[in-house]
Amino acid sequence: MTSANRNPEIRKDAVNNRTVILSPARSRRPSDFKSKPKPEPEPETNPNPHPNPTCPFCAGNEHQCAPEIFRSPEYSTSDWKVRVIENLYPALSRDVEVKSDDVDYRHADVVSGEVRLGGFGFHDVVIESPVHSVHLPDLAPDGIAGVLLAYKKRIEQLCGIASISYVQVFKNHGASAGASMSHSHSQILALPVIPPTASTRLNSMKEYHNQTGKCVLCNINTKELLIDESNHFISISPFASTFPFETWIVPRYHSSHFHELGEDKAIDLGGLLKLTLQKLSIQLNDPPYNYMIHTSPLQVTSSQLPYAHWYIQIVPQLSTIGGFEMGTGCYINPVVPEDAAKILREVKIPT
Amino acid sequence: MTSANRNPEIRKDAVNNRTVILSPARSRRPSDFKSKPKPEPEPETNPNPHPNPTCPFCAGNEHQCAPEIFRSPEYSTSDWKVRVIENLYPALSRDVEVKSDDVDYRHADVVSGEVRLGGFGFHDVVIESPVHSVHLPDLAPDGIAGVLLAYKKRIEQLCGIASISYVQVFKNHGASAGASMSHSHSQILALPVIPPTASTRLNSMKEYHNQTGKCVLCNINTKELLIDESNHFISISPFASTFPFETWIVPRYHSSHFHELGEDKAIDLGGLLKLTLQKLSIQLNDPPYNYMIHTSPLQVTSSQLPYAHWYIQIVPQLSTIGGFEMGTGCYINPVVPEDAAKILREVKIPT
Repeated sequence: MTSANRNPEIRKDAVNNRTVILSPARSRRPSDFKSKPKPEPEPETNPNPHPNPTCPFCAGNEHQCAPEIFRSPEYSTSDWKVRVIENLYPALSRDVEVKSDDVDYRHADVVSGEVRLGGFGFHDVVIESPVHSVHLPDLAPDGIAGVLLAYKKRIEQLCGIASISYVQVFKNHGASAGASMSHSHSQILALPVIPPTASTRLNSMKEYHNQTGKCVLCNINTKELLIDESNHFISISPFASTFPFETWIVPRYHSSHFHELGEDKAIDLGGLLKLTLQKLSIQLNDPPYNYMIHTSPLQVTSSQLPYAHWYIQIVPQLSTIGGFEMGTGCYINPVVPEDAAKILREVKIPT
Repeated sequence: MTSANRNPEIRKDAVNNRTVILSPARSRRPSDFKSKPKPEPEPETNPNPHPNPTCPFCAGNEHQCAPEIFRSPEYSTSDWKVRVIENLYPALSRDVEVKSDDVDYRHADVVSGEVRLGGFGFHDVVIESPVHSVHLPDLAPDGIAGVLLAYKKRIEQLCGIASISYVQVFKNHGASAGASMSHSHSQILALPVIPPTASTRLNSMKEYHNQTGKCVLCNINTKELLIDESNHFISISPFASTFPFETWIVPRYHSSHFHELGEDKAIDLGGLLKLTLQKLSIQLNDPPYNYMIHTSPLQVTSSQLPYAHWYIQIVPQLSTIGGFEMGTGCYINPVVPEDAAKILREVKIPT
C-alpha cells in the first residue's frame, strides 16, 4: 500500500476517541518530510563551554536555580546525573491554600456556569544531564532509565498529596516545541483536576473494556504499525496518528500507572526510547519534538483499572496548527501511519 | 484587579467545558504582549504589483486556480469582490463515493475498536479581495459583510448534501498561523462527521440549558469581559480564555446557525469584526491569527436547538503550544481575560 493516489480517510481509535483526517494527497511523499534546517548559530570560540556560564541547568550553576527537590545519585555533589528542581516560573502554585470545605477554593457559579478553582499544584523541572551539550538520546539506556526513575520517584512523592489528581510528565525539545531552555530537561506538572484529554482517554478505554472485556492497549493491532520492540515495550505509529510520524511507546504488559515502572523495565524502556528518538532525529532532520507520558489518575489503585494502560506519546513538530485544527479538534495528517511505521522501521542507526 | 501578585487560577466555562490555567505570575505585564517583529522583506522595485504574477488569488490570475464555485457579484468579470473556489489541495475529497448501505464506507472493527470512514467532504477557499495587498480588516464593513455572506451562501449549498454533518469556516492569517498564501483568504471545510470540539460544545451548552432553562451565550456574564458592542453583536474576552487575548464575537440575539445571518446583521458584524481585528493588530503588533466560526450541525433545524448559539472565536498567535497543552488539552494562559478585555477596550483606532 503506497500513499500515491490514495483517497483521504477519517479514522478514530478506541484509545483516545480522537478523530483524524489522513490526507496523503495533499502533500509530498512521506519520506520527504523533514524538519526545516535551523539557522546557523553564531560562530563561537568554544561552542560548548562547560559549564555554560549563562545556563542555570549546568553543573556548577546550581545556585542559579529554584530550590532542588532531589538529585540522583542521592548524595552526589557536582557529579550528579539527574536533578529535579522547582520551576522558577511555575504555572501552578504550591502556596495556594487548599481546604476542601472552603467554598472560595472551588467556586461554581450556577447562573453563569462558570467554575473557578485555586491554581494549586506543583510544577517541577527534571534536568536530564549535568552537561549542557548532552541531549536525552545521547545518554546510554541506563542513563535514560535514571531520568525515567526520577519521574517515577517524584510522582510517588506527589501521590502523598491528597489534592493532586493527575500528574503530566512532558518534554519540550527545541524552541518551536515550547522549550525555553536548550539544556536537556523535562517537566512534571501536578494538577488538582483530571485534565480533559486524560478523562476522555480513560472513558474511551473503559468503554472498550466494557464492550470487549479486554484492555485496548493490551489488545492493540500492530499489523503494519509496529516500528520496534524490546523485551517489555513496543514502539508503534498509532492507527489514528494525529501528527506526521507521531509515535507511541507502549508497555507489552498491562499497567495503568507509569510510576509502577521498575528498574529493569526502566532500562529496557530507556533503550527503546533512545532508539526511537534517534530514528526520528535521523529521518526527520533533528526536529523539535514533544513527548508526553499518558498515565492514570493518582488517587486510584491499579487493581481498580483493568482498562487503563499507560504509554508515551512522541510528537515531532513538522507542521503548523491552523484554524481548522483549533476549531474542530480534528487534525489533518498528511502521512498515513502505515507509511510512517514502514519508514521508521527501516531507519538504520550509524554505529 | 491587576495581574501583579495574583495567584494562578483554574477556570472552566459552560460553553466549551474547557479547562484553562490562568497563570499571570509567569509572565510580563499583559500590555507588554506583542507579536515578534517579522523579518524585513527583500526590497522590491514595486512591492505590491497588481496582479501579483505569482499569486493565483489575484484578479487576472483566475485561470491558475482550482475551479470556481461562485463569485460575488454573481455576473461580475474581473471586477469581482469575493470568489469561492475549490481548494487545489483538499483535505477531504468530493469524489469519495458515499453509500449509506456500503459497509466499506463506514467500517468499525469491534476487536480493535478502530473506526475508518471514507474521507468525503468539501474543502473550499474564499478569496476575500481581488487585490493582493488588501487584508480583511482593510475592507469597509459592507465589504467584510460580502465575505461573511459568501460563507453563508456556500453553507446553504452544502446543507443540500445529506452526508455533510458540519461545516467549519476558518481563517489563517500569517505563516505561523497556518496560512500558505499571503493573499487574504479563508477556508470552508465541510465534514461528514461532527468534530470533537463541536460535539463537546453542544453537549456542554445543552447541559447548561437543561440546568437553567436558558441559552448559555444569551445569558453570558459580560461584567469586566466586554470589549465592544454593536447593534446586534458583542465582542468579549471569554471567561476561560485559552490563549492570551482570545476574543469572541457573539450575536446578542439567539441563533444556533451562522448561516441564518441576514444582510443587515452581516454589515453590523462586518463593522465589529473590522474593529476587533484592527484593535488586535494595533495592540499586539500585527500578530498572525486564526478565526473560527463555531456553528451547529447542518442537518438540524434551529427550532430544535434552543441551547446552541453560534459565535466567532479569534485567536492571535502569541505563544507556542508545548507538551503540556498537547498532553492534557488544558492550556496555560498568562493573560487574565479581565486584563485583556480592559486593554482591548481602551485601544484607539487612528482615524
